[in-house]
Amino acid sequence: MTQDPASMLATYTLTLSCPNRPGIVAAIATTLFEADGNITEAQQFDDVETGLFFMRVVFSCRADAERTEWLRARLDAVAARFRISWTLHDRAQRRRVLLMVSKFDHCLVDLLYRWRIGELPMTPTAIVANHPRDTYAHIDMGDIPFHYLPVAQDTKAAQEERLWSLVQQTNSELVVLARYMQVLSDSLSARLSGQCINIHHSFLPGFKGARPYHQAHARGVKLIGATAHYVTADLDEGPIIEQDVERVSHFDTPDDLVRKGRDIERRVLARAVRYHLDDRVILNGHKTVVFGD
Amino acid sequence: MTQDPASMLATYTLTLSCPNRPGIVAAIATTLFEADGNITEAQQFDDVETGLFFMRVVFSCRADAERTEWLRARLDAVAARFRISWTLHDRAQRRRVLLMVSKFDHCLVDLLYRWRIGELPMTPTAIVANHPRDTYAHIDMGDIPFHYLPVAQDTKAAQEERLWSLVQQTNSELVVLARYMQVLSDSLSARLSGQCINIHHSFLPGFKGARPYHQAHARGVKLIGATAHYVTADLDEGPIIEQDVERVSHFDTPDDLVRKGRDIERRVLARAVRYHLDDRVILNGHKTVVFGD
Amino acid sequence: MTQDPASMLATYTLTLSCPNRPGIVAAIATTLFEADGNITEAQQFDDVETGLFFMRVVFSCRADAERTEWLRARLDAVAARFRISWTLHDRAQRRRVLLMVSKFDHCLVDLLYRWRIGELPMTPTAIVANHPRDTYAHIDMGDIPFHYLPVAQDTKAAQEERLWSLVQQTNSELVVLARYMQVLSDSLSARLSGQCINIHHSFLPGFKGARPYHQAHARGVKLIGATAHYVTADLDEGPIIEQDVERVSHFDTPDDLVRKGRDIERRVLARAVRYHLDDRVILNGHKTVVFGD
Amino acid sequence: MTQDPASMLATYTLTLSCPNRPGIVAAIATTLFEADGNITEAQQFDDVETGLFFMRVVFSCRADAERTEWLRARLDAVAARFRISWTLHDRAQRRRVLLMVSKFDHCLVDLLYRWRIGELPMTPTAIVANHPRDTYAHIDMGDIPFHYLPVAQDTKAAQEERLWSLVQQTNSELVVLARYMQVLSDSLSARLSGQCINIHHSFLPGFKGARPYHQAHARGVKLIGATAHYVTADLDEGPIIEQDVERVSHFDTPDDLVRKGRDIERRVLARAVRYHLDDRVILNGHKTVVFGD
Repeated sequence: MTQDPASMLATYTLTLSCPNRPGIVAAIATTLFEADGNITEAQQFDDVETGLFFMRVVFSCRADAERTEWLRARLDAVAARFRISWTLHDRAQRRRVLLMVSKFDHCLVDLLYRWRIGELPMTPTAIVANHPRDTYAHIDMGDIPFHYLPVAQDTKAAQEERLWSLVQQTNSELVVLARYMQVLSDSLSARLSGQCINIHHSFLPGFKGARPYHQAHARGVKLIGATAHYVTADLDEGPIIEQDVERVSHFDTPDDLVRKGRDIERRVLARAVRYHLDDRVILNGHKTVVFGD
Repeated sequence: MTQDPASMLATYTLTLSCPNRPGIVAAIATTLFEADGNITEAQQFDDVETGLFFMRVVFSCRADAERTEWLRARLDAVAARFRISWTLHDRAQRRRVLLMVSKFDHCLVDLLYRWRIGELPMTPTAIVANHPRDTYAHIDMGDIPFHYLPVAQDTKAAQEERLWSLVQQTNSELVVLARYMQVLSDSLSARLSGQCINIHHSFLPGFKGARPYHQAHARGVKLIGATAHYVTADLDEGPIIEQDVERVSHFDTPDDLVRKGRDIERRVLARAVRYHLDDRVILNGHKTVVFGD
Repeated sequence: MTQDPASMLATYTLTLSCPNRPGIVAAIATTLFEADGNITEAQQFDDVETGLFFMRVVFSCRADAERTEWLRARLDAVAARFRISWTLHDRAQRRRVLLMVSKFDHCLVDLLYRWRIGELPMTPTAIVANHPRDTYAHIDMGDIPFHYLPVAQDTKAAQEERLWSLVQQTNSELVVLARYMQVLSDSLSARLSGQCINIHHSFLPGFKGARPYHQAHARGVKLIGATAHYVTADLDEGPIIEQDVERVSHFDTPDDLVRKGRDIERRVLARAVRYHLDDRVILNGHKTVVFGD
Repeated sequence: MTQDPASMLATYTLTLSCPNRPGIVAAIATTLFEADGNITEAQQFDDVETGLFFMRVVFSCRADAERTEWLRARLDAVAARFRISWTLHDRAQRRRVLLMVSKFDHCLVDLLYRWRIGELPMTPTAIVANHPRDTYAHIDMGDIPFHYLPVAQDTKAAQEERLWSLVQQTNSELVVLARYMQVLSDSLSARLSGQCINIHHSFLPGFKGARPYHQAHARGVKLIGATAHYVTADLDEGPIIEQDVERVSHFDTPDDLVRKGRDIERRVLARAVRYHLDDRVILNGHKTVVFGD
């Protein structure tokens, strides 16, 4: 799609962040211009509170290795001058994504469907579950390897080592916790920092502890929601990528809340994963900058 | 509107709650039928968890005192049999409502406008503020008496006594805290229980303490919301009547959140007040049953 | 679920409509009370414009054939008196549903998933497509028979006859057009009236003709939506059951609109089917009464 | 707010559109850098269908006349090279806005309130109505001149001439039709092209002719909406700036739809006016590019 065999054009996404000062945009735009790049999308954000500057640029240019190497060298030079952190992705290269799931598979089924019809530009590297394969009998996993990694209190450290090995062996760039109900340890969370997306319910007001939909029902809330966020060592409190809500009423039983919650969870997670795959999310301390579409 | 001079029909709203058991609906419907009443709206809810039953009925019948007295006596008899709590309101009689405000007047202005164009069937009895009249110079309060009741830490008890006297003198049936930023004491909250509606911001996750919109901004939330609830002794935690949210992004400054918050607050409070005035809200322990339209 | 083996209780949904006049609710409630029925949900609507009255009642009572026969006889008697059309469904009996699909299978996949996890109380009787089985290679259809009924201009009448036979042979009570892109003939639409749900895109303003998402894009709309409705002879104009929208912007290409459209279509269709299966929808001329949850 | 007396910094918004080709961003960014400008917001959009490029840049730089003149000359030179249409606004200069209203004043009241509390950075130059001043007795118009310009079929041309004179005499840069129910003539619409915002209801499907809320009610729609757009000679069909919807049900009477419609209309119009005042809207043929916040 992003490779045009005739002209050998490739499309790239460049993201960057740095302390804000005059000249950054000019320097970047000039660099891309000198590389014969044509900017097709650009979004910027200047965080006046932290003094940080964020930018996402989509551009096309000739797809030969020499050109790309030259461009990377030039970007390095600009980056050194402005203390820029940057990433450059060829949009034709799909990210490698490891999917994790527990008993409830609505998010997994949804992500696989969106991947299959071409909506999520990723390569699933593995499906990891803490339940055996037959729990998901009705899911066509195609060629994606399935790994059953059960977890018990005294085997948790070992299970996480196997999981981490799997991430490395499969060269997975992103881990999606598609309703994986085990809390990751602080050390694994730290290793996966900014590379692991989780989904959880959220309510107004919030509820701690078990059976949150039942708590929300007991409180009589009129809205229920879900939040997708990056995993950090601090459970359920990582940088928020996306949120959404749905209306509920006194007619809704706790089961109805769970049902409506499923719908919110899958669409919020799918949006967050798509934003990540499309390099639309940049970390800004405990927050995110999301250049939406 | 609800009085037809020709046939002298009046329209009533009956609300009731009681322990659920067979025969309630039949008993009520038969009673109204015997009073020559014609049911035009009816909503019921059976809370299977608490075993309580809730009902709201709108009906019209001949508007003479004798008939009404007879009907009330019959409803008393049915109520005794089923341990029903009930209220019966002639829909032509507007509720008397006392409005309270602090510095931010967007909810007050909105409620007065909706009242003026006939959207809120109420009679404002007083506007009470802890700021002087000229704070609201641009608001046309018409004939509604304005009361400046300033409050300081050591005068709070006295101020609340004056407020309570005002509620009684004006026969106010409902107090609306239209962004009145003083916390009511537990004793006044108890006196006003179920008769006082408050509006406050709400977020996913929630934030305690001062400058909540700034906290929400610091956390990077993607949605902000507002909750209208009945006041109880337990601050900001009374039974929820209505909630709504709006989407925000990293572009939104704390001031933008406050601006969007104003829009949500005024529409959520207006809906909650309208539901109350239309007898659509019935208390169910710490929750509400809201028979929406 | 709705059968309690100990007490042999069954749960029923009664829906009815009739010209409004006093006494209907009392007559129905008394009848159910005499059958030892316990009403757990009841919703009513009085259409003051047409003078019609609509009611949905969920109740439980002893599950023996004699009792049910007696109840049906009594309901017949009440119905005769008030000119009531009514239906009574044992909630333990799942509706038989025939699903139709064309090339785009997102709605079909979604409905099957919701059925599998118990969200949609139905029995799929057949999946009918105008594309061969391998178009849907990744869909686990379980035991549901698949029928490939291709259609061409000169075979349309014959294809519809086969379809109609299938509906009858399978005793299907509902046909769901899950993005079945063939227009049904007027005669088949008439046969399926009130028993066939369709989903289509909708926009503000509306667009006629081919490639509607492209037309909407060309017009620069800021919202796109979908409508689920009963099929009538009048294409895309049957009684509306449910609608929803999503926000779009100038950044969205026609393909993005199609992608967002898929999300709206599947959730709007799923809600409409659930409302139908739960006897929440009653026809009111060219409109519907939907007793939502 | 945008003037800092110490450093004499001013903040500007630059908007531009032109045929897309490489080098535009670099040229603009370099020009602003050479003017010692600091870019704080920048948004771009490349319309691949039309080949047009759109950009909005907010930047601050030293506020002296010489510097500004130099910058404008440089921008002219860049514009000539790339065939750019551009505008440059000092954000401290409020736009002059003429407000028009008919009988229903909910949008006018809302706009005035938002202006008064500082939410809309504009200077109202006049309020023009086709009803006399006492129709709006409860509205505090402060110092804004009120003009009663009644209109009848044979006086329409004359009335529009008076209106146009008023626009010119008051140097109004924007006309807001805040539920002004008279259709502007093609010639006046052409004169005001891109400078006049209108608000009207919108439905799925759409309805032509009188009493649209009644038509929508008769059709049984489940959503009602409103659209804000620039006025063109083609009634109700100008480039769309903003849209929103609200959910309705069979319980809603036509009057309820009108009430809900008021809420949607006022918030959609307020957003559209704010976007315009903040230079967030750029015309793109029959569409708009809206760089939202």
